[in-house]
Formats: sequence, structure tokens, C-alpha cells
Amino acid sequence: MMRTPDGHTRLIGIVGDPTGHIKGFTEYATALAARGANAAYIPFHVAPADFPAFVAGLRGLRNLAGLVATIPHKLAAFQAGEPDATARLAGSANMLRPTPTGWQAGNVDGPGFVLAARAAGMSISSARVQLLGAGGAGRAVAMAVAGERPAALAIHDSDAPRAENLARAVTEAFPDLATRVALEESSLLVNASPVGMGSDTRLPCPAGLVPGAGGAVYDIVNRADTPLVVLARQNGALADHGYSMMAAEIPLILDWMLGP
Amino acid sequence: MMRTPDGHTRLIGIVGDPTGHIKGFTEYATALAARGANAAYIPFHVAPADFPAFVAGLRGLRNLAGLVATIPHKLAAFQAGEPDATARLAGSANMLRPTPTGWQAGNVDGPGFVLAARAAGMSISSARVQLLGAGGAGRAVAMAVAGERPAALAIHDSDAPRAENLARAVTEAFPDLATRVALEESSLLVNASPVGMGSDTRLPCPAGLVPGAGGAVYDIVNRADTPLVVLARQNGALADHGYSMMAAEIPLILDWMLGP
Repeated sequence: MMRTPDGHTRLIGIVGDPTGHIKGFTEYATALAARGANAAYIPFHVAPADFPAFVAGLRGLRNLAGLVATIPHKLAAFQAGEPDATARLAGSANMLRPTPTGWQAGNVDGPGFVLAARAAGMSISSARVQLLGAGGAGRAVAMAVAGERPAALAIHDSDAPRAENLARAVTEAFPDLATRVALEESSLLVNASPVGMGSDTRLPCPAGLVPGAGGAVYDIVNRADTPLVVLARQNGALADHGYSMMAAEIPLILDWMLGP
Repeated sequence: MMRTPDGHTRLIGIVGDPTGHIKGFTEYATALAARGANAAYIPFHVAPADFPAFVAGLRGLRNLAGLVATIPHKLAAFQAGEPDATARLAGSANMLRPTPTGWQAGNVDGPGFVLAARAAGMSISSARVQLLGAGGAGRAVAMAVAGERPAALAIHDSDAPRAENLARAVTEAFPDLATRVALEESSLLVNASPVGMGSDTRLPCPAGLVPGAGGAVYDIVNRADTPLVVLARQNGALADHGYSMMAAEIPLILDWMLGP
């Protein structure tokens, strides 16, 4: 249950397509109640073609605190606003907030991932990291991982140029780090691709590359039973998934939109 | 408290400017829960200048069930959509719903007023009616009152041409009815002007024109203690106010947006 809105309620919308699979509404309602904030977190189902006009129209919504952008809108959200430092580094945005003249775009997927991995007991700084997926979330995670100075960072995407672009951007921002486009063995495997979402039963990489005992797997898909997480646990690896990342992002997002 | 949204929740927004005074959120939440509808009723604070772009952008919001339009958007809502019969008669709209190609505009202020007045024990068909206010709500109420065949209908607005336009429109639709622009004694006084809203302590007409015992006063302002309602009760008149009209409209609006 959540607080019933009134005429002063501010809105935070999560914009996605589809939206049916989106989780976290109870967690946001609980976090808003704990702050005593009069705000409601609601779904906005918007197709990619409609995103620009939708966002333009929402500039006139005076009680909008902000938008959370999820698949497939993270690159469009980046383009819709003036990016802050984190969004600029990631080249994608998972949140927008109104400014006097337009929108500011931000991204806490990277910080959220680092907080969640740390909370799960995964060390990034000593790891050989394999990142799967160089889309909006993958870019944010790659930059945050690079900032933790891992032993190495390999990036793979089924869209090869996208992986190359991301590896180049990471190398520009972190020239000392061994970053390359590859799909190889690792001690920390991070899935930032959408493979495994919803009814998708595929692994995002060959089964032989899923770490075992002593290694770790983080699947940013927010589902406890993705094929990747299940196999990682069978292998004896430390495993966690997108729920903890989403939970870590909630206070960051609410601070950014509502003030700390 | 209301049901926490999820990724399948449909939205019904009430668009106004301002919105702080808007009531009915608990009543809508209760009505939605009673239907078992997965829908949330939320405030949209939009200034008149932003209304067209806002409505245009919302066409891409796939989980929007509809918009309730309140002050000052009832004429703009009428212009934003293809009006149905009730909206066309009223020349204003208090609701919009998406169609495959745009919006349909509807108006249940008239039916809502008639239901509420009847429930309060006020007879319209035998009354000499004085209507105050010829704006969006006033037009809707005038047409609904005319449809009940009162003994006479006098219309007053501080904007005289607006009153004349409405009297002309009522006469066109109901040529047998004695409709004229006037401010006079009546047996049923209806305030459809915004006078008395919020901290406005004015009466919408001279005190001497407020009916006494045997007469009736309906103030569509949704507040139990408007100066008009207080004076009507002191005078011994039957008196009611906009709460009952809002409540009568909820099932009409939800049927229209969600299906019966």
C-alpha cells in the first residue's frame, strides 16, 4: 500500500517499454514514506518513437520531480537533457529532472552497481572483469568498474562496434587500465545485457565462461533465477542480481530528484 | 492508502492549475479498489500555456486511461479532443480519453450536477433557476438544467458576453425554455463560478438573492463552508455543495475511461 496522493503530490515516473516486468514499486513507496515525502512513483509506458514528444510535453508538468529511464530509453534520456558528470562519463542516463530551461540527465547505474557488488562481498579492484553488454547500462557499469581499478576489463557485446566504442571510451577516461574487446575467462563476470530478462532462458555467454568457486557473477537483470545466476550458484561462484543494484539506486535517485 | 502501483498500472490524471485544493483522491482510490481496477488517480499540475504540448506528449503514454480536466482547462480540453454529444452540448469538457488517432473529449459535469441536486432533494423541473457563472462548468450545468425543463433559467456572469453566449446556446438547444441573461430572485440558485474557492470569502451574488426557506442553493465549489453555503443554511434554504457532484461523477468518469 502507498500513501494516497493529494493535490500537492509530486510524481516520479519510471519510463520504459514494456513496463510490465518492472519491479521496485513497493521499495520506492517504502523509501518515500520513510522520508515523509509526498511523492508517488508510477509507471510511464512509452514507446521509443514517442519518447521525445512525451518528454517535451512533461516539461509542463509542474509537480513532476523526475523520470527514471529504463530499457530502452537510457540513450534517449541522455540526449534529452544536459548530462551531469556521471551521465557524460557513461554516455547514457537513467534519470532526468526538470531544470528552469529543460532537463538535466544523470546516471546512477554505475554507483549503484559498485555499491551492490560491494555489499554482496565482491571485490572489483582485484578482479579480472568480463562485462557482457555495452548498451546504456553496460556503459555506466563499465565506467564505474574502471573507476575501481580492476586488474583487467574485457567487454563483449553481440553488436561488435558497440563494444569497440565502449572500450575506446573507457580507455580514454582510464588510460592506465587494461581494457579490451574480448570474451574470455574472468574472476568477476557482469551481465549488463538484457539476455535473461523476462521469459528469455538464454545464457548471455558460453556456459564455460561462467566463473566457479572463488569467482563471482553479477547479473544486472532484476530476477533471482536468471539462467546465469542459477548456473553461477551451481558452479559455486558468489552470485547476485539486479535487485540489489535497484535497491542501492533508490536513495541516490530520490536524493537527486527530491533533495537529500 | 491506495494500492501500490506496478508495471501494469493504468493512470488517470486530474489536470488543473493550481492543484493543491483538489479533493477526491481518497474517493477515487476507494472507487478504483472497489472495481478491482489496477489504476492510480494522480494530480497533474499544468499551466494553461503548457496544456497543448502536455496533452500532445501524453498521447504516447500507453498506460494512460484518461485525463480529468478541471479549472482552468475545461475549454482547452474541449478543443484538444473530438467532443462526444455531452461535451458538444456543453461546449466544454471535463475528461479526455485516448483514441487510436488522438483524444475524445467528454463532459459529465452536467449529469453529475443533476444527480447530486436530485440526491440532495432539490427539484430542478419546477424551479426558477439562477445560474452564476458561464465558464466551462457553468455551460455544462446550464445544458443539464435546461434538459430538466425548469420553469425558467437566468444566467449571470461577471463577463457579460460570456453569459449572453451561453444563454443563446441554451436557447438554440432548448427553444421552448425561458432562458435569459439576468441576475434575479430564484427558487434554486446554482453557483458555477469559482467565487468562494480556496481563501476567497466573497459571495458570488448579492446576499439578498440567496434563497431562504423553501428555496435551494447548490454551490459547485467543493467545500462545505463557502460563504454562499453558510448564508443559504442560515436563511433556512436547502443547501449542498460540490462534494456530492464530484462523488456522483466518479463512477461516470471511471466507466468512461475504464469501461463499465
